[in-house]
Amino acid sequence: MTRPLSVGIAGLGTVGGGVLRLLRDNADIVAAHAGRPISVTAVSARDRGRDRGVKLDGVRWYQDPVALATESGVDAVVELIGGSDDPAHALVFAALRAGKSVVTANKALLARHGVALAQAAERSGASLAFEASVAGGIPIIKALREGLAANRIRRVAGILNGTCNFILTSMRERGREFADVLAEAQKLGYAEADPGFDIDGVDAAHKLAILTALAFGRAVRFDDVHVEGIRQVSALDIAFARELGYRIKLLGIARRTEAGIESRVHPCMVPENSPLARVDGVYNAVVAEGDFVGRVMLEGRGAGAGPTASAVVADLIDLARGRTAPVWGAAADGLSDAPSVPMSAYVGAYYLRLMVLDRPGVIADVAGALRDSGVSLESMLQHGRAPGEAVPIVLVTHETRESQMRVAVDKIERLDSVLERPSVIRIEHG
Amino acid sequence: MTRPLSVGIAGLGTVGGGVLRLLRDNADIVAAHAGRPISVTAVSARDRGRDRGVKLDGVRWYQDPVALATESGVDAVVELIGGSDDPAHALVFAALRAGKSVVTANKALLARHGVALAQAAERSGASLAFEASVAGGIPIIKALREGLAANRIRRVAGILNGTCNFILTSMRERGREFADVLAEAQKLGYAEADPGFDIDGVDAAHKLAILTALAFGRAVRFDDVHVEGIRQVSALDIAFARELGYRIKLLGIARRTEAGIESRVHPCMVPENSPLARVDGVYNAVVAEGDFVGRVMLEGRGAGAGPTASAVVADLIDLARGRTAPVWGAAADGLSDAPSVPMSAYVGAYYLRLMVLDRPGVIADVAGALRDSGVSLESMLQHGRAPGEAVPIVLVTHETRESQMRVAVDKIERLDSVLERPSVIRIEHG
Repeated sequence: MTRPLSVGIAGLGTVGGGVLRLLRDNADIVAAHAGRPISVTAVSARDRGRDRGVKLDGVRWYQDPVALATESGVDAVVELIGGSDDPAHALVFAALRAGKSVVTANKALLARHGVALAQAAERSGASLAFEASVAGGIPIIKALREGLAANRIRRVAGILNGTCNFILTSMRERGREFADVLAEAQKLGYAEADPGFDIDGVDAAHKLAILTALAFGRAVRFDDVHVEGIRQVSALDIAFARELGYRIKLLGIARRTEAGIESRVHPCMVPENSPLARVDGVYNAVVAEGDFVGRVMLEGRGAGAGPTASAVVADLIDLARGRTAPVWGAAADGLSDAPSVPMSAYVGAYYLRLMVLDRPGVIADVAGALRDSGVSLESMLQHGRAPGEAVPIVLVTHETRESQMRVAVDKIERLDSVLERPSVIRIEHG
Repeated sequence: MTRPLSVGIAGLGTVGGGVLRLLRDNADIVAAHAGRPISVTAVSARDRGRDRGVKLDGVRWYQDPVALATESGVDAVVELIGGSDDPAHALVFAALRAGKSVVTANKALLARHGVALAQAAERSGASLAFEASVAGGIPIIKALREGLAANRIRRVAGILNGTCNFILTSMRERGREFADVLAEAQKLGYAEADPGFDIDGVDAAHKLAILTALAFGRAVRFDDVHVEGIRQVSALDIAFARELGYRIKLLGIARRTEAGIESRVHPCMVPENSPLARVDGVYNAVVAEGDFVGRVMLEGRGAGAGPTASAVVADLIDLARGRTAPVWGAAADGLSDAPSVPMSAYVGAYYLRLMVLDRPGVIADVAGALRDSGVSLESMLQHGRAPGEAVPIVLVTHETRESQMRVAVDKIERLDSVLERPSVIRIEHG
């Protein structure tokens, strides 16, 4: 057996501890697949005293993660600090410039600095691997970059944030409101104390930006992703979704259209029999549609120490075997600059739920506002009667342009009988 | 851009035609991902005159596929002839011995000669890639060999034959018998005129042998796979499955147990809410369970020119980039020789459906036969009454050893009131 691959790890939180345990527990399997042992020789973490369940005797400690990145005894650097700023930013660029390959779980860094990272890697001949950055243990990066590399991809769609999927699943299964379920998810450790990054869709948008770049061979453009979170999803909408044969999921969707590339994260109504509708709880899933392969779906745990460690060490095994790929699957200077389609040009069907005063003429007013904005109605649903009281009305439109829909919603909101801002959820085929 | 990868293709049937069309239609994408063009420079096929929808001007034709395999102008050979005998066998070994890498869709060859192939490849330093051999366009070989390579795999289970899944899905959706649906599938081109290879489980067993070797790092052992097909599955059993909350699927399952490795292909009752239960029609899916990653599922089209060509060309892109792996993910001399568990030692729950004469004492006789064989009953179901006539009885057992179950079934079959051989279907968690 040849010389071990010597690894330095920066960041020993939950995931870093998982990587250490995996390399210890599965050392035999890892060495067989890698063709040589993989050993951790240097680490950098804030708290040297913390018990991570793994002995670190003989491993060199660095206060400064950037110093670890350029240590001559380290063949590859694992960056698990996170965030798109320093020290993660400085550390990864320093390692790549020094010709050291990097494995990272850092989606924010990839989404915001992906092109510069690819250029840095190409200049020095180092690799940058990031399987753990999207969908945890699911090998979706490898699938898009290698397994489906012969296809012209039409569409990628995924459940990319386990916290949101857990919350939406709990709301549906137990008929409860968002705020209650969020509080519970925080108690269980499925949501952060500061949950905005997850529930406002930012985390999913980072991941979608990465998938979009890989799927379409285009330079990564995080700022072009349209982002909406799940705070506005109500128990009432989830109940109506069920009645209409849908489930509400937060999806990240990237699609190639004639006008360019759409990339958007928002709550969707998906048909209850579609593959993504059935992915519940903390599971993630990604569907890719290619011209030769058709529809392929990958599903698994999207977060946690075990799945993320599985992805990090898979990347290390690739490095140990000399299996490399350009960061975005193709050379950085060959990436396309296909335009992004603005959300206002999006075309699709919409679910619209209003709270109105139940009195004669309300539906005529609403229908008139839609007609005047060029929005065509597919169906309308109003249960029961409660004269003079607030009742929900649900409308489903035919395919409509987003810009027209926005005009229609503004008009509807201004109607006297309409009591609150309408709830608007896009319908997606799943 | 560097020199093209020069490819020779042996076998220009449906899949070969698909590979030619993909390399033509997606030449830009393939070259970007491969880092250089991939061009077909030589072919071997029976019928030179047939229209394959792609011009083959300037491509060298070989009558003898083995001569193509050793042509000096060819960098890599694509074998699409099929079958574990010559000429496929001779061609692949000749290419590997000549140091030429091979891409193949040939599951029979891999399942029956996998160890010798790995040794031949290692001796000459050539690669042998076979993504297309299992589950069509789903990148499951790459997922097990690379993406999940850090895990100790506990279990792999999959719907590996699209013909069987199409037949079972049609039987369920339309309440029809096996023979009717098979005849229709043959008319539609979803089943061969000689369907035994598919419906008797042999095709699925070849694929399972390959997945077992990759998942457990063990030398491939096709002869140790227990194989049953779907000819015995009746419309009545499918109706009872629905009533009990199950669907009937032909699964290939490999599992690591304390006694060794189980590998078996047979119809299963899987809970209707399990991921594999919902994979219908010609789709394939594979679930892998690893110690760190948990459960991962990949789903997609398991056959056809497009998906298979997608997998073949993905392997060629890997070769063009120099991304290689040992045939079975680890060095051939390091593969384990873990024993296979014989089917008689299998332990699980069983569905048992009898046709009996409806008369007093029948159920006591059946229950007695089960008790005498040490089989414990979980539930029993008999609908309606029809004194003196034939009626079905359904029994579900607790976990039972297969050898005991066989004794019990023999006893039951010999009872006077039992009119035909009982239908026995194992229950699997999906």
